[in-house]
Amino acid sequence: MKRSIYLFQAFLLSAIAVIAQRPPSISSPAVHPDHSITFRYFSRKAQKVTLNGEFLKAPVALTKDTSGIWSVTVPPVKPDIYPYSFRVDSVELADPNNTYIFANERFKRSIVDVPGDQPLIHSLQNVPHGKVSYRYYKSGTLGITRQLLVYTPPGFNPNSKTKYPVLYLIHGGSDTEETWTKVGRANLIADNLIAQGKAKPMIIVMPYGNVRPAPMPDFTKDMVNDIVPFIEANYPVGKDSKSRAVAGFSVGGGQTLNIGLTNPDKFAYVCSYAPYTATEEFKKNFTDWSPNAGQMNGQLKLFTISVGTDDFLYESVKQNIALFKEKGLKVEPLIVPGGHTWMNCKLYLAHTLPQLFK
Amino acid sequence: MKRSIYLFQAFLLSAIAVIAQRPPSISSPAVHPDHSITFRYFSRKAQKVTLNGEFLKAPVALTKDTSGIWSVTVPPVKPDIYPYSFRVDSVELADPNNTYIFANERFKRSIVDVPGDQPLIHSLQNVPHGKVSYRYYKSGTLGITRQLLVYTPPGFNPNSKTKYPVLYLIHGGSDTEETWTKVGRANLIADNLIAQGKAKPMIIVMPYGNVRPAPMPDFTKDMVNDIVPFIEANYPVGKDSKSRAVAGFSVGGGQTLNIGLTNPDKFAYVCSYAPYTATEEFKKNFTDWSPNAGQMNGQLKLFTISVGTDDFLYESVKQNIALFKEKGLKVEPLIVPGGHTWMNCKLYLAHTLPQLFK
Repeated sequence: MKRSIYLFQAFLLSAIAVIAQRPPSISSPAVHPDHSITFRYFSRKAQKVTLNGEFLKAPVALTKDTSGIWSVTVPPVKPDIYPYSFRVDSVELADPNNTYIFANERFKRSIVDVPGDQPLIHSLQNVPHGKVSYRYYKSGTLGITRQLLVYTPPGFNPNSKTKYPVLYLIHGGSDTEETWTKVGRANLIADNLIAQGKAKPMIIVMPYGNVRPAPMPDFTKDMVNDIVPFIEANYPVGKDSKSRAVAGFSVGGGQTLNIGLTNPDKFAYVCSYAPYTATEEFKKNFTDWSPNAGQMNGQLKLFTISVGTDDFLYESVKQNIALFKEKGLKVEPLIVPGGHTWMNCKLYLAHTLPQLFK
Repeated sequence: MKRSIYLFQAFLLSAIAVIAQRPPSISSPAVHPDHSITFRYFSRKAQKVTLNGEFLKAPVALTKDTSGIWSVTVPPVKPDIYPYSFRVDSVELADPNNTYIFANERFKRSIVDVPGDQPLIHSLQNVPHGKVSYRYYKSGTLGITRQLLVYTPPGFNPNSKTKYPVLYLIHGGSDTEETWTKVGRANLIADNLIAQGKAKPMIIVMPYGNVRPAPMPDFTKDMVNDIVPFIEANYPVGKDSKSRAVAGFSVGGGQTLNIGLTNPDKFAYVCSYAPYTATEEFKKNFTDWSPNAGQMNGQLKLFTISVGTDDFLYESVKQNIALFKEKGLKVEPLIVPGGHTWMNCKLYLAHTLPQLFK
C-alpha cells in the first residue's frame, strides 16, 4: 500500500512537470456584472498586444504585469455576443483561454457572451430546449457527402402526424454550417420564441453553403435537389411551399434570393439578411429578369430583406430592394442600426421567426 | 436596367476593397496523395515561423516566399488525424486557414486529416450514418444547465421496443464535450464498426467532464444522478448495468475508474484510456480500498485499461494496473505503441466498441 502511495507521488511530480511547461491558466474573457469585460493574454516575449472586438470602434492596447500577463478592461458594453481577437505583435489570433471560437474558414476569432440584466432572446433560459443534430447527406449535385445541422424543436415527435414546417438557414461567405448555432444561437432563439408562443414549432436546417467556384447556381441545385429531399425523406415535414422558408446572411443572403426567387413554387418565405449580390450569377439571374410579379406576390407569403444602416452593403442592399420593387414585387424591408455583423444576424432571425408559417 | 448594372459594379468594387484588406486565401494544410503535407501561413512581418505537429519529433521551420507566404512540406506521415499549430515569433496559434480546430479550453490547435490509401476506421465511409445531437440537461449536482452530445446509431428508432445500450464517453482534462467527435471521430468509428457487424448499435453519450474544483467526486455524482437519468428519461435504453459502459481518456480515464469502480452495480463495462490518477480524490478512493474482488469480477463484464508505451503516464498506468491486480480484480490491459494522444484515443475506442454489450 505504502509503495503505491510513493509511486503515485512520483508520478504526480512528473505530471506536474509536464503541466508546468504549459502557460498559466488565466481567465479570459471575464465578463463583470456591470458588463465591462477584462481580456487577458499571457506572453513574456510579446512587444505589443492589442484587442480588436466588434464592441470597439478601434483596437485597444493591453498592458503587461510583472508575471507576463497582459490585460485590459473595456467599459460596459451593450449585452450581446461579440467576436474579438488579439493582435500579438504582427499576429492576429483567437483568445487561447476562451473555448468559444467563431466557426469560420478564413479567420480564427473568439466570441464573448455578455449577458443582459434580463435574459436576451438568444440567452439560455429555463425553457424546454430543442436539439441540434449533426448529420451527413449525399449531395448528388456536388458528388460528395456533406454535413448539415438540423434543429428540432422541444418535444419533437419523429412520428408526428402533424407535419412540421422547415426553415433552411444559410450562413455567410466564409462561415460554416456551425456558425448559425455557435455564433448566431439560432437554436436558443427558436427555443425562446417557441416558449413565448411567438414562433411556431419548426425544424431549422443549417447546411454548409460554400460551393466553389459557383456558389449561387450549384448551391441552389444542392438545396433544391439534395438538401430538401434529404430532410423530407427523414423528418415529418410539410412538402408544400407554405411549409418551406429560406433565409441567409451575406453571401447566404444572396443565395437566399437566388434559391427563393427562382423557386417561388417551392419556398413561400424568402428572408434575405444583408445580401451580398455583387456576383456574376446574381446579375445574370436578376438584371434582365422579368418576373410575373402578380403571380409571384401570390406565391410568396413573405419576402423580406434586412440590413443595418452601418452595413458596408447598406447602399447595395437598398438598391436590391429598389430593384425588386421596380419589378413589382412586394418586398418588406427591415432597416435597423448596426453593421454587417452576427449581432445583427441574431436580430434579423428573431424578427423573422414569428412571421413564418402563420 | 443599365442603372442597376452600374450600381452593382460600384458596389462590387467597394466589396472588393473590403475583401482586399483580408490576408490572401491560401490552402493550408494541403495533404498530398503520397501523404506528405504542405502547411502555409501568410505574414509579411514575421521573423520566424515554425510548425509543431504530433506527427513530428521536433518543430520544423517554414520559409517565406516573396509574396509573404511561409510554407513547409513535411515528408509522408502515417495516415491519421493529427493536431498541429504554428509558432509565429513568440506566438503559438491555430492555422488561420484551417476550419478544423481541436476542441479544447487551454490551447488552440488545428487538426489535419491524412486519409489512408484504404479507408481508416475513423474515415467517413459510404455506410449508413448515425447522428450526433447537441442537447442541454439540468445538472442538479452542479446547479447549472450543461451541454452534452448524444450519438444515436444509423436507423435509430426513438420508439424502439428493443432497448439500446449506452456508452458514456469522457474527454481529457482540458478538452470539451466536442473533442470525442471533432478530434476522436467517435461517431464515424461507431458508424464503421456497426456497418461491419463488429459493434452493436449503441448510443454514445459525450458529456462535458470538467468540474472545478473537484473533478472526481462531483463529476461522478453528475454522471450517476443527472446524466444517466437524463438519457434514460429521453431515449429507449436499457436501465441495467449490462446496458451501461463508461470510458474516458486521461483525466476522463481517471473519472472512468472513479465512476465505474465505485458503481459496479451500475456500469458493467469500465474502459479507462491512459488514466490520469494522480489526484487526491483518486488516492482517497483507491489506496486504502478493499473491494470484494470476487463480487466485483462478477459484476464487471469488462474492465480494461489502455495505454501507449510512449505515454508520459505509461509508468503510472502500469502501476494502476498492478494495483488493481493486487486487489484481485480482473483487469485487461491494452498496451500499444504511441503517446498520450488522440491518435491513440481513436485506437482505444475502436478496440473497445466490439467488446461492449455482447
